[in-house]
Amino acid sequence: MAEKKDIVIIGGGAGGITAALEAKRFYPDKSVLVIRKDHPAIVPCAIPYIFGTLCDVNKDIIPDSLLTKKGAEILDDEVVSINREKKTVITKGGKEIGYEKLIISVGASPRVPKELETELENVFTIRKNAQYLSKLLDAVDKAKNIVIIGGGVLGVEFADDLVKRNKNVSLVEILPHILALNLDEDFGLQAEEYLKNKGVKIYTNSKVVGYESENGKVKAVKLDSGATIDADLVVIAIGVKPNNELAKKAGLKIAENGAIYVDEFMRTSDPDIFAVGDCALKRDYFTGMPVPYMLASVACNEARIAVQNLYSIRAKNPVKGTVWVMLTNVNGVSYGVVGLTERQAKKLGIEYIAVTHETVDKHPGTLPETHKLKVKLLFSKSNFELIGAQLSGGPSIGELTNILALAIAKRATAIDLAFMPIGTQPWLTASPIGYPIVVAATKVLKKIYDANIS
Amino acid sequence: MAEKKDIVIIGGGAGGITAALEAKRFYPDKSVLVIRKDHPAIVPCAIPYIFGTLCDVNKDIIPDSLLTKKGAEILDDEVVSINREKKTVITKGGKEIGYEKLIISVGASPRVPKELETELENVFTIRKNAQYLSKLLDAVDKAKNIVIIGGGVLGVEFADDLVKRNKNVSLVEILPHILALNLDEDFGLQAEEYLKNKGVKIYTNSKVVGYESENGKVKAVKLDSGATIDADLVVIAIGVKPNNELAKKAGLKIAENGAIYVDEFMRTSDPDIFAVGDCALKRDYFTGMPVPYMLASVACNEARIAVQNLYSIRAKNPVKGTVWVMLTNVNGVSYGVVGLTERQAKKLGIEYIAVTHETVDKHPGTLPETHKLKVKLLFSKSNFELIGAQLSGGPSIGELTNILALAIAKRATAIDLAFMPIGTQPWLTASPIGYPIVVAATKVLKKIYDANIS
Repeated sequence: MAEKKDIVIIGGGAGGITAALEAKRFYPDKSVLVIRKDHPAIVPCAIPYIFGTLCDVNKDIIPDSLLTKKGAEILDDEVVSINREKKTVITKGGKEIGYEKLIISVGASPRVPKELETELENVFTIRKNAQYLSKLLDAVDKAKNIVIIGGGVLGVEFADDLVKRNKNVSLVEILPHILALNLDEDFGLQAEEYLKNKGVKIYTNSKVVGYESENGKVKAVKLDSGATIDADLVVIAIGVKPNNELAKKAGLKIAENGAIYVDEFMRTSDPDIFAVGDCALKRDYFTGMPVPYMLASVACNEARIAVQNLYSIRAKNPVKGTVWVMLTNVNGVSYGVVGLTERQAKKLGIEYIAVTHETVDKHPGTLPETHKLKVKLLFSKSNFELIGAQLSGGPSIGELTNILALAIAKRATAIDLAFMPIGTQPWLTASPIGYPIVVAATKVLKKIYDANIS
Repeated sequence: MAEKKDIVIIGGGAGGITAALEAKRFYPDKSVLVIRKDHPAIVPCAIPYIFGTLCDVNKDIIPDSLLTKKGAEILDDEVVSINREKKTVITKGGKEIGYEKLIISVGASPRVPKELETELENVFTIRKNAQYLSKLLDAVDKAKNIVIIGGGVLGVEFADDLVKRNKNVSLVEILPHILALNLDEDFGLQAEEYLKNKGVKIYTNSKVVGYESENGKVKAVKLDSGATIDADLVVIAIGVKPNNELAKKAGLKIAENGAIYVDEFMRTSDPDIFAVGDCALKRDYFTGMPVPYMLASVACNEARIAVQNLYSIRAKNPVKGTVWVMLTNVNGVSYGVVGLTERQAKKLGIEYIAVTHETVDKHPGTLPETHKLKVKLLFSKSNFELIGAQLSGGPSIGELTNILALAIAKRATAIDLAFMPIGTQPWLTASPIGYPIVVAATKVLKKIYDANIS
C-alpha cells in the first residue's frame, strides 16, 4: 500500500513553498509534503544578482527550514505521473504516494526557438536549478564577452549585474527598445540609456539567427543584419513556457496557451487537484484573456487562493483576474509597471487619459541620495478608474508601484488618488506639494472639469 | 481704491504654496497673490534635518520660482485684518488688497506651557521662519549640552539629527515612551532603543518644571523628579496650536479646539473665505471628532480641496474626515503609522483584531543594506476593514505606509489585502512569500475561518 499524505505539493519553488506554508497555517493537523525535482530552493527573482552581486549560488537559497520548522515535509524526487483514480503520485525514485489534495506548482521552462537550439558548450538558458546556475556562474567567471539574447526583465537585470564585474556584455533585443513589453517608449528608452551608460552594448530591432563556433564552443552570435557579436558565453532569456507534461499525461485539461486549466479557485479539471504559478492558467484583469504573467508574486498569490479553497470554497479573490505588476532595476534606477501600458491600451482599443508628473523622491532635493521620480498614470476615459501606471525612480519605486496595484484592485478613480491620504517624510517620500500620484491624478480632474460635460 | 486680486492666499507655507499652485492650475486666468509673513519659505518637514545633515537653512528652502513661474505673485507682508464686508485684507505694510476668494493658511504656533515661558537666551521653540531657524542653528553650533523637551516626532527627529554632530542630546518626554501618541509600546520602545543606541539620553515619564540659569542664560532644566539636566541650549517641541487670531478678529466661526471652523469643502463660516492646514478644523476619519492633525501632507490635501471648490462645488473628498498618516525616521530606521493605534482603539472602545508579521525588506536577505521589516495591522472586528497600521523598517516604509493609507481610504478589508496584487523585486521589496501586508492580512483570514461563525 502506498504511503499517504493529506496535502501533496509538486514543486518547491515560490508557489510550492507558499502553498506548503499556507497549508500548515490553515490546516495544522494535515500532513503536508513537498516533492521537488530541484534542490536546494532558489530565490527566483534574485537569480540575476547571483552573477555580479552575490557571486555565490548559496547566497540565493530559500532554506528548507522555512518549511520543516512549520511541520511540512520535503522529498527530493521527481513526480513522473499522477494516478487520479487511485489519488497517488509516482516518483522517478519509485515511490507511490497517496494524496487527499494535490497542488501542482511545477513552473515553466525557458523557451528556445528552433534556430537557437544547440549542443554548444557555453550557451545557457536561465533555470531555477542551483546546480545549473553554479555551472553558469563558473562560465561567467571565465567569460569575457557575454551575449544575452532577450531584453526583457530577466535579460536586463542579468546584464545590469554582470557589468559590475567588468565583463563585455551585449544585449540583443528583437523589439525597438529594451523592456518593450513592460514600458512605453518614454520609460523604456530612458532605461536603455541607463544600461548603455553602465557599459552594456545594446542591439535593438535585432534578432540572433545562429552561432559561430569552434571546437564545440560558441565564438560569436550572428544577427539578422549580418553582423556578428563575439561571445564566449551566450545566455538565452527570451521567455518561458508552462510545464504542462505531467498534467497533460494525467488527462487534466490544458488551456489553449499551454497552461494547465484552472478556475478562479485554482482548481484544475479534477476538483482534488489544484495548479498554481507559472504552470497554471492566468487571465488578465482587464481583458479576461489568457496571459503569461509568470512571476513569483503571482504564483504566491495563487498558492494562497488554492490552499484556502482546498477543502471548501472559503476565499474568492476579490480581484477577478490577474493584475500585471512588475518591478525591475537598471543601473540603480528602479522601474515599476502596473496594469496596461499605452501601447497595450491602444492595441486593445481602450480609450484612456494619460498624465505624467516628475519630481524627486526626497524633500528637499538637497538631501543626500535624492533620485528623480517619474510617474505616468493611465485612466479609463469613461469611469476614470486607473488602468495602468509606469514609474521610475529610487528604491521607493517598489512600494509606490504597489500603491497603484492596490488602486487598481480597489478600482480607485482619479478623484480617489487626487485626494488619497498620504504620509510624507524628507528621507522617505516626495514632498506633499509634489507627491507624484496625487499631482498626476489632479491633472486628470482638471481635464474633466475643463471638458465641461453637460 | 484698493488693489484687487482674484484669489488671495494668506500664508506661504505648504498649504499656501499648494493653494497658489493649484489655483493657477485650475483657474489660469485668475490673478493669484500669496501674502506671507515668513520668507523665504521653509520645507517644513525637513526642519529637523537643518541641524545635523544640511547644516544650512538655505538648503531647506522652497524657491519662490515654484510659484512665480506659474504666474502666482508673492507679497512679503503680514495681513493684520480682513474686512469681510469690503472683501479686502489690510497688511502691516499699510496695503489694502481686495479679493474675490480668500484662503487662510496661517499655520500654527508652538505651544509653551506657563511653567516653561521664559526670557532666557538659548531657550528656543521650533518655528517655520528662516531667520529664527538661523539663530537656532547658530545656537546649536555653539552648544554642547542640548535638552529637547518633547519626545514626539519633531523632538525625536531633531535629537536624531543633532547627535550626528557629537552634541550631548537629552530628550525629555512626559509619557512612558517616545512617540507615544503615534506608536504602541511594541514599536515605540524599539524606536526608543534605537535613539538611545545612537547616543541620545532619554528621560521618559518626566516633566520639565523649570530652568536653572545664570546671567540670563539657561544652565540646566529641572525635572519633576527633582533631577536636573545640564543644558546650554533648550528646545521646546511639545506641540502647536492653530493660529486663529486673524479669523477670530474677522468674526469667522472658531471651533471648540481653537481651529478655524471649516466645512468639508474647507469653507469657513464666510462662503468666500476658505481655511486650510494647521489653522483649519480637521475631523478624524474614524470618530468625526476634531483632531490636531497638523502635517504638511494634510495641509496640501486641504489646499487642493479648497481650490477646486472655490467657485462652485466640484470635488468632494471621497474620504470623509482626515486619516492620520505619519512617517518618521530614528537612527536610520523608518516608522510609519496609519489610522488608529491599539492604544487609541482601546480608548475609543473599538473592537479590533491585531496581527503582526516580521520579515526583511529585500530578498534574499543576503543582499547589501537589508533591513528588518515589521508590520502590525488592526482590523475592525465587525466588517474586517483596516482601521490602523504601524510599520518599521528601511526606506521603503514611506510608500509601504501609503499603501495602507489608500487601503483605509478605499475601505480595504482583510481579504482585499490578503490577495492584493503586488510587485516584488530583490532590491525593492520583501519576498512574495513573506510580503508583510499580505501575510498579516492572511493571519486575519485564518482567525475568521477558525471562528466558524454559524
